[in-house]
Amino acid sequence: MKLSQSFTKTTKTAPADEVSNSAKYLLRAGYIYKEMAGVYDYLPLGMRTLDKIMNVIREEMNAIGGEELRMTSLQPKEAWDASGRWDDKVMDVWFKTKLNAGGELGLAPTHEEPFTRLMKTYISSYKDLPLYVYQFQTKFRNELRAKSGIMRTREFMMKDLYSFSKTREEHDKFYETVAAAYLKIFDRLGIGDCTFRTFASGGSFSQFSDEFQTICDAGEDIIYLDREKKIAVNEEVYNDETLKTLGLDKAKLEQVKAAEVGNIFTLGYKYSDALDLCFNDEEGKRQKVFMGSYGIGPSRVMGVIAEKLSDDKGLVWPVEVAPYKYYIVGIGEAGEAKAAELHDLAPEDVILDDRKNARTGEKFADAELMGIPYRVVVSDKTLAENKVELKNRSTNETKLLTLEEFVSKLS
Amino acid sequence: MKLSQSFTKTTKTAPADEVSNSAKYLLRAGYIYKEMAGVYDYLPLGMRTLDKIMNVIREEMNAIGGEELRMTSLQPKEAWDASGRWDDKVMDVWFKTKLNAGGELGLAPTHEEPFTRLMKTYISSYKDLPLYVYQFQTKFRNELRAKSGIMRTREFMMKDLYSFSKTREEHDKFYETVAAAYLKIFDRLGIGDCTFRTFASGGSFSQFSDEFQTICDAGEDIIYLDREKKIAVNEEVYNDETLKTLGLDKAKLEQVKAAEVGNIFTLGYKYSDALDLCFNDEEGKRQKVFMGSYGIGPSRVMGVIAEKLSDDKGLVWPVEVAPYKYYIVGIGEAGEAKAAELHDLAPEDVILDDRKNARTGEKFADAELMGIPYRVVVSDKTLAENKVELKNRSTNETKLLTLEEFVSKLS
Repeated sequence: MKLSQSFTKTTKTAPADEVSNSAKYLLRAGYIYKEMAGVYDYLPLGMRTLDKIMNVIREEMNAIGGEELRMTSLQPKEAWDASGRWDDKVMDVWFKTKLNAGGELGLAPTHEEPFTRLMKTYISSYKDLPLYVYQFQTKFRNELRAKSGIMRTREFMMKDLYSFSKTREEHDKFYETVAAAYLKIFDRLGIGDCTFRTFASGGSFSQFSDEFQTICDAGEDIIYLDREKKIAVNEEVYNDETLKTLGLDKAKLEQVKAAEVGNIFTLGYKYSDALDLCFNDEEGKRQKVFMGSYGIGPSRVMGVIAEKLSDDKGLVWPVEVAPYKYYIVGIGEAGEAKAAELHDLAPEDVILDDRKNARTGEKFADAELMGIPYRVVVSDKTLAENKVELKNRSTNETKLLTLEEFVSKLS
Repeated sequence: MKLSQSFTKTTKTAPADEVSNSAKYLLRAGYIYKEMAGVYDYLPLGMRTLDKIMNVIREEMNAIGGEELRMTSLQPKEAWDASGRWDDKVMDVWFKTKLNAGGELGLAPTHEEPFTRLMKTYISSYKDLPLYVYQFQTKFRNELRAKSGIMRTREFMMKDLYSFSKTREEHDKFYETVAAAYLKIFDRLGIGDCTFRTFASGGSFSQFSDEFQTICDAGEDIIYLDREKKIAVNEEVYNDETLKTLGLDKAKLEQVKAAEVGNIFTLGYKYSDALDLCFNDEEGKRQKVFMGSYGIGPSRVMGVIAEKLSDDKGLVWPVEVAPYKYYIVGIGEAGEAKAAELHDLAPEDVILDDRKNARTGEKFADAELMGIPYRVVVSDKTLAENKVELKNRSTNETKLLTLEEFVSKLS
């Protein structure tokens, strides 16, 4: 990508009403644009970053047998009446609207009911089970307060997977498979070392649900963390009984603020009961399907990564997440020509800062603000040695590579 | 993809209220699921098909300098007051809703206003122009009547590009560039020979807009077509004056039903006036930005392709659009083993019909219903000659390929 041909520009200041670092940097660096409180557009850099996060999640969901599909946002009342969740008192984040042709519609804040309803068409026998389906889809939630930039919004990207199992045992096994996949995802996304499986309140079918909480001052949750055991307890279930059940020692727990980046939940028969989702078992007996749900919000994860890993100069993206891997600045005539040549070898890897009206210092500052993993300088001086200079955004380390070494790194 | 591990199944019948062939086949083959009238989920096969159509469009939009981003559906009233389009009498397809925190919101049925508003942040000088931005985004339209399956729906995928130019001349040049790109897109999508640039009603800034209309009995438009000149006139502007302006001979025109698959529109100063989007020209004089908009609905295009190219056995996808390229059926023990081996070489290219409970005839019928471009049979008999049998879904031609020849075709 050539900066001279990109419409976004970095700015020195962010809107005064943004308090979180992540929101300020994402706005200043041209990743997002604020439509209104809690509603943000994803500009080219932001869209690429979000897509990269989604692709990591997609790969891991496919690896555990997930089938991807795409449900709708518009939902008819009928589908939600059976579970009782059409009622605004039961689910208070609905956006509802009216059909010109008559009738009330809602914008799905979650998708348990539509997935359960869909599966009534496709599940009839034990041979159809277990099955795992997921989507990346825009969720709408009528939050009273939007907070911390893209960390809590009213319109956001969500990966939600639903599992349909024959038995509780089959479910429990898959539940642990997803838990392991989630830890792998957060590792790949660069927040593995500060993200912890956290016991939270369950439902009728299990004492606890599991959240994945990233230690983060801008987070909304309080968790009690056993660093040694690598597990935590959400404040909402932090009591002597919980600690005893989990074998945790109060004295060893650390109280920290955290942001929820994922959750997995044993739904049991809640929705298969309400919507009558059944299968015929090996003996031909009609049985209810045992369900689970598994969420990760890629846009919130993007906000948390931005919040956690940024420094006083701007964003710091892990390589798997960064919109581009290299930010190339050419200095001098030969340097500029070579920089353009390197860009053209791998335009999907590279931001070429070919702006005529920006000084080198400004270019360096923008590379840091945007958080691109490696800044690459090509100057008459480096070229005299047939080299380029690579600076690591995260460690600040600088090293010289031969042109051949650098080219071999491009995809 | 292995059919034994996919949750969807083909069915012999479609819901009685679906009248169009495309909707019937897409539902029966497990591409889509109907949430309600005019609202369809995209199941794994449907999602892949839609994504392939989107990727063809994306490649051509990038090739003409489009930058991709993603705007939101939720829209504050203020952004649309300036243009007057918040008014339901001016734009009658709004879905509107209320914010719990207070205030009215709408679900964007189109995005001229938000793009214009966004550009007030990024356009200030003639150096910033021209620029071209686009998105793939879910549009919501409160249509009184939904029709023909995914051809006219209330929630659908849209590619909308907006151009921002310094002058009318600059605009006109890009407008023609997009028109050429659109023809290329419809060619690649397999409907080039039956899709025509069609003159339709314009606006304050041009006598005509351009539609791209595909000849189709299930379409909603009537066009008058000059096959030789490869242009058409929409019924709405079909009159002597139009024919004279365009140099068309009434006697040579053919009246046909057609479905609109794309449109391009000269917006002129309509939105830059309303929202005060300006730039400083070379002389430092403040000028209004000249705009255009360019839409293609990938989900409607998918419906039109399904409608146009299907036959009495089911769907017929062009290779660029098909969710998978090959549908492999193994017959006999050795055939099944080799079929599985071929699948594993390129699971993204191949549907392996490894269902234990389906007869070969059923498998062949499903391959046809799903519209996969090539059916591949691997049996003890073909293997005796070190070959596989390829049947072309569109031409019905059958030929034998050596295993090596077939493997070299896989990606």
